[in-house]
Amino acid sequence: MPSSADKLLARREKLLGPALSLFYSRPLHIVRGEGVWLYDADGRRYLDMYNNVPHVGHCHPHVVEAIATQSRMLNTHTRYLHELVLDYAELLTSRLPDALDVAMFSCTGTEANELALRMARTVTGGTGVIVTDHSYHGNSQAISEISTDGNTVETRPPYVIAVPSPDRYRGRYRGADAAESYAAHVNDALETLGNRGIKPAALVLDTIMSSEGIVSVPSGYLSRVAERIRAAGGLFIADEVQPGFGRTGENFWGFQRDGVVPDIVTMGKPMGNGHPLAATVSRMEVVQAFAGQAHYFNTFGGNPVSAAAGLAVLDVIENERLQENALVVGRHLIAGLQRLAERHERIGEVRGTGLFLAVDVVEDRTSRKPATAAAAQIVDELRKHGVLTNTIGPRDNILKLRPPMVFSKENADMFVDILERLLDALPDAKRTTR
Amino acid sequence: MPSSADKLLARREKLLGPALSLFYSRPLHIVRGEGVWLYDADGRRYLDMYNNVPHVGHCHPHVVEAIATQSRMLNTHTRYLHELVLDYAELLTSRLPDALDVAMFSCTGTEANELALRMARTVTGGTGVIVTDHSYHGNSQAISEISTDGNTVETRPPYVIAVPSPDRYRGRYRGADAAESYAAHVNDALETLGNRGIKPAALVLDTIMSSEGIVSVPSGYLSRVAERIRAAGGLFIADEVQPGFGRTGENFWGFQRDGVVPDIVTMGKPMGNGHPLAATVSRMEVVQAFAGQAHYFNTFGGNPVSAAAGLAVLDVIENERLQENALVVGRHLIAGLQRLAERHERIGEVRGTGLFLAVDVVEDRTSRKPATAAAAQIVDELRKHGVLTNTIGPRDNILKLRPPMVFSKENADMFVDILERLLDALPDAKRTTR
Repeated sequence: MPSSADKLLARREKLLGPALSLFYSRPLHIVRGEGVWLYDADGRRYLDMYNNVPHVGHCHPHVVEAIATQSRMLNTHTRYLHELVLDYAELLTSRLPDALDVAMFSCTGTEANELALRMARTVTGGTGVIVTDHSYHGNSQAISEISTDGNTVETRPPYVIAVPSPDRYRGRYRGADAAESYAAHVNDALETLGNRGIKPAALVLDTIMSSEGIVSVPSGYLSRVAERIRAAGGLFIADEVQPGFGRTGENFWGFQRDGVVPDIVTMGKPMGNGHPLAATVSRMEVVQAFAGQAHYFNTFGGNPVSAAAGLAVLDVIENERLQENALVVGRHLIAGLQRLAERHERIGEVRGTGLFLAVDVVEDRTSRKPATAAAAQIVDELRKHGVLTNTIGPRDNILKLRPPMVFSKENADMFVDILERLLDALPDAKRTTR
Repeated sequence: MPSSADKLLARREKLLGPALSLFYSRPLHIVRGEGVWLYDADGRRYLDMYNNVPHVGHCHPHVVEAIATQSRMLNTHTRYLHELVLDYAELLTSRLPDALDVAMFSCTGTEANELALRMARTVTGGTGVIVTDHSYHGNSQAISEISTDGNTVETRPPYVIAVPSPDRYRGRYRGADAAESYAAHVNDALETLGNRGIKPAALVLDTIMSSEGIVSVPSGYLSRVAERIRAAGGLFIADEVQPGFGRTGENFWGFQRDGVVPDIVTMGKPMGNGHPLAATVSRMEVVQAFAGQAHYFNTFGGNPVSAAAGLAVLDVIENERLQENALVVGRHLIAGLQRLAERHERIGEVRGTGLFLAVDVVEDRTSRKPATAAAAQIVDELRKHGVLTNTIGPRDNILKLRPPMVFSKENADMFVDILERLLDALPDAKRTTR
């Protein structure tokens, strides 16, 4: 470890304490970012295949300039009128289905989900929430309760029920009727809530199922579960913190795959390219019903600088055609990874869409047994070769590939080459002959 | 209303919905800020006596430059090592008592209080929280529960107990033993929790009691209640979102009045001069006990740009001697307001410290009856005269004076002159002859 990192690590332990986790056993000391590249204190360059927060690229000049310019002019709150937050709300809702026309701004995905949950509970009069197994929606108390990745059935409150994520690779239903079979679990969840005397408020889903393992959600699943929660008087909340803003390539939002229109959409991380910005978008009638019983104010939410950052990000996505880039480069990257998968037994499945891909690392393809240690080793080796990524999923055996949206075919080829050399060199890698 | 504001208001209703409140029946359209001044779209200048978020002055060039420079260089998260967040944690904790040496960063005061509460509940194993009547600590579900300004005894969960705020102007105890009499209510609260079979986790106080009416907390109150909650196995959490960063003039933090050292200190609004930045600071042993059972990560919390903003704010407070300025100008402003109070029966009491003052508007001085309508009228008239402020307190009859910390004696004189003319002109103002 370079001595600069050593010193920082010691200071960090002392000043920030032991509750915050770091990436890598020998953590990185990153000092500069540009596009898809991060640079450490020794000037070493890393291809960033992990960070989705710098959505339009690290330090994109258009976003940086928008933040600097508005910071020089005014930065107050939404209790005074200001054009920018309205321009932003207008542009943002224009990217959503017509019915979703009201945006309420906050600072983090957790806050966006807090407000969504509060709206759903206020409007429905219910408290019950249905989520997937191994979900992650944020870090507050109420949102930790519905983040089943960090709690267990035993510690979960009675009003939170988890259904299996619609995993067709390793889950219980893998056939053509998987969408219906998985969706039927929502009926069981509703029945359990009913038996407990709890009225349902919402079904909350990350539509790309990132924490669940970047599951390939079967077509028809989202519309089926939305129908079921609505029939029971609850709302369908799509958590678009991960899939939103064109990342999936095919659509601007994850929920659009199924043509379903959620009652509430939440978004965060990539919205401000690093500036803390989040939103809860819903239908006017839902917001009106909520406003009849409650008020909401968020000091920093939707302030002029946040709005300027958000507008600039949408501009860049449009001007640089980044959704299209995600689709084209994502397909190219998938093709490259599938070529590797043909030769390497370690790669159980390559899945995902756009620039949010999963490489499922397995002991062998027959058992599909998660190879947690091997995946961790690959992440470490990739870092040594100048590529940053990480693992995800219930067993942490899935490589999460989620680079800034300016990722190019050239970047993809570089990654596939490095991964190939690395898999070839892995001592226990079994190879399949083509 | 100017037509620009009219149009914005209509767009706002449509795009942001009816759940967000605005200031003034005819809302302001603010386009520019500088120091203690805000400018509307017609170029009209307003003396800002309300906004504490632009702590070192609207658009302070040192803070703006720090944000712009770091935004151009790198903006990631705390899972990589970075100097700035450590430099900031070091400088921030150096402004706190020695024992409070670990800082965990988030984006909003709500998030800082969420983490504090989670830490307290994890470390103590309790759930019970004691707060004051009419408290405000944030907008999430768990923090709304302990914000008694927005809930009632009936809607409050059994693990939240409110004690009377130590109000010596209108409360039940006004004499020399008020500190002890009010503190004794914590014993009752602990007993109630005990009767309900609930173990206490924390006592949470805004040490300037802003939402409670900017109460003059009697000397000895904070240390007495801290002692009681600790004896019962709970932690003392000081919410310094409002009083922190030198605003009280006498001290850098509100809790320092009593020489008490809290177990956890939370802070937010003014930290980044408008950039979303918040922190939860505690003792290493508390953080270690928490880390033994939980992890915490906040995507944007403590990122390099947030740290740069926070560092710049601390620099400016130091370089421009803003704590001293708050003390000197605050005293000057209090003296001016007290001269008015001698002539105007409407002013029941002038209280507060530094640049966080209250003018308690009453029907008459004998009854001390809150004059809510008169206070609202004064706020509206002040706005017509180019001064921005607002009311607070359980009956919304208290003028809240909380300007950016660069507020000068000249600004104070201007305000007192305007307020004097306005009180003289108020139709129902009774006058006392000197």
